[in-house]
Amino acid sequence: MTDIKRSRNTELWDFEKEVTTNASESKVIVGVDGGATSTVCVCVAAPHTAYFHEPPPVLARAESSASNRNSVGDAVAKLVLERVLSNVLEKARRCRSAVQAVCLALSGVSSADDKQCFLEWLRGIFPANVKLSVHNDSLAALASGTLGKLYGCVLVAGTGMIVFGVSEDGKTAQAAGVGPLLGESGSGYSIGQHALAVVMRAHDGRGPSTSLSKAILQKLELSSPEEIIGWMYKDYSWARVAAIVPIVKACASMGDPEAVKVLENAVEELAGSVKAVVERLNLAGEDGQKSFPLVVVGGVLENDHGWDLCSQLVYRIKEFCPNVQPIQPKTEPAVGAAMLAWYSIS
Amino acid sequence: MTDIKRSRNTELWDFEKEVTTNASESKVIVGVDGGATSTVCVCVAAPHTAYFHEPPPVLARAESSASNRNSVGDAVAKLVLERVLSNVLEKARRCRSAVQAVCLALSGVSSADDKQCFLEWLRGIFPANVKLSVHNDSLAALASGTLGKLYGCVLVAGTGMIVFGVSEDGKTAQAAGVGPLLGESGSGYSIGQHALAVVMRAHDGRGPSTSLSKAILQKLELSSPEEIIGWMYKDYSWARVAAIVPIVKACASMGDPEAVKVLENAVEELAGSVKAVVERLNLAGEDGQKSFPLVVVGGVLENDHGWDLCSQLVYRIKEFCPNVQPIQPKTEPAVGAAMLAWYSIS
Repeated sequence: MTDIKRSRNTELWDFEKEVTTNASESKVIVGVDGGATSTVCVCVAAPHTAYFHEPPPVLARAESSASNRNSVGDAVAKLVLERVLSNVLEKARRCRSAVQAVCLALSGVSSADDKQCFLEWLRGIFPANVKLSVHNDSLAALASGTLGKLYGCVLVAGTGMIVFGVSEDGKTAQAAGVGPLLGESGSGYSIGQHALAVVMRAHDGRGPSTSLSKAILQKLELSSPEEIIGWMYKDYSWARVAAIVPIVKACASMGDPEAVKVLENAVEELAGSVKAVVERLNLAGEDGQKSFPLVVVGGVLENDHGWDLCSQLVYRIKEFCPNVQPIQPKTEPAVGAAMLAWYSIS
Repeated sequence: MTDIKRSRNTELWDFEKEVTTNASESKVIVGVDGGATSTVCVCVAAPHTAYFHEPPPVLARAESSASNRNSVGDAVAKLVLERVLSNVLEKARRCRSAVQAVCLALSGVSSADDKQCFLEWLRGIFPANVKLSVHNDSLAALASGTLGKLYGCVLVAGTGMIVFGVSEDGKTAQAAGVGPLLGESGSGYSIGQHALAVVMRAHDGRGPSTSLSKAILQKLELSSPEEIIGWMYKDYSWARVAAIVPIVKACASMGDPEAVKVLENAVEELAGSVKAVVERLNLAGEDGQKSFPLVVVGGVLENDHGWDLCSQLVYRIKEFCPNVQPIQPKTEPAVGAAMLAWYSIS
């Protein structure tokens, strides 16, 4: 009861009064993937083995809005996180005392201070014996592709963009992950923003005309490029700019040179970020021929029948590490976070 | 009295109760230059001639914070504007009834709807016989260089960036002026943001190392590039990013290749924006040899003993219009706005 009182949003945990603990039920582990567009939380059964041979089945899943602290602020991020945590346990009919471990994998969280801040907050919600961990979301994405083994490189290109790598001897390196205002070319936000800038340039004569203009105005339900200005500054959330990416891909697949340029630039920047991490960790070995896993995830890399950005990217990356093993995970990053939670116990 | 009641911030105008109208005093005109970093308001005597042969002397001057609606929002913009208006008249010891004309020249205001919104608000503050006008700030900058004649081209490169042109037959054209998120390369914000991105790239290996890193960290009083992330997202005001420009110029003048690249890119973008307007209005004539005034203003173009961006820019512009007449105004844009106010009467 003490721990429940420490929670700041007590009403979220009211359901626990009605949950009767069944001794035959195994304990659970919880993984959270907090991004700049949405937050996903899964509850999985604690496995009977030390290692995962396949992704664990999901007992319950909850989804909510963005929890990137740089995008929505600390207070909103924590409220969203506590909501998905209570929501997933309510769906799984488990009290917090039935939880063995929780892992938060959060975009926008990089430094030790950032992690400590969320860890202390999480400590106020769960009983003291629950094993807690906080990582950058890229780590959960890596784990989702390697079944929890922390080795290789992961590229997350969603609303934001980050490359994270772990060498065989446990050294780590990161590139990008700095948010859209500090140069994350290749992220969904950046692609959307570049496309909007291209439309404004076409409008005032700084750049050539492009089919992006009509397509984007239609998508945003606006009647002239000037109206994009009001649209852009009325709401600073990053996700709505990233939502333009499929339009850019569609225009590029129809051959629009400006749209193709935006995407080719994104490929170049994404490949350059992977290269920076691979070189710093020497993942491809001295001769550049060594094989290592490269997990690729995020909306920008999804094949949505437009311009195939992912294939172009892999092609470009193989120029500097030909034996890289690209992996598109079969499970979502939140399950990767749950696997990390499990390994934090064992 | 009726008009005073219509004002929403009555206390700002309390001073009027103590101002005694002196019949011998001439009427005044008021000009406001509202930018994304600061707002300047001047009160000048209405001239005895129809045209200005030199900038009118300033009776009173007031300065306040940013009033760019896209940066601070409509409510803050209007409060800042009403404050500088009351402040300048208090300093000049004039009631609103002594004002012949007011011109607001505002950055972030482009469309007819934008102007109408501020015009209606202004109408609620001044007596009905005061002539009111609202323009984009670039028009006041042009007027400050041409003594009120609306012909030629103006480039404003401050925190934001805009190019505005007026042809001899009164046609107008604009380039950029879309705010920093929609592609205003060459603005102070954009230069600062690019420099910060260069520092982040140097830090994680995506780009070469640069003297910008140490210089910018020192300026921001931070100890590592990672801290730039927290600094960037804790406050979205544009002016503090633009304040990095002098550091970039200093590093470039010491030969740092990355700093030089950021500024050369800015020059290219500024020249391209001028070119777009000059071509649309045919300001340089069919043979490109015609002379026309090009007023250049804004902090980015000031010669602060670093890398001389303005000279580089003029050199680049003369490649496509060799007989352009660059003008660095002797008076500030707010006085240009006052001159526009005067011409709106006559």
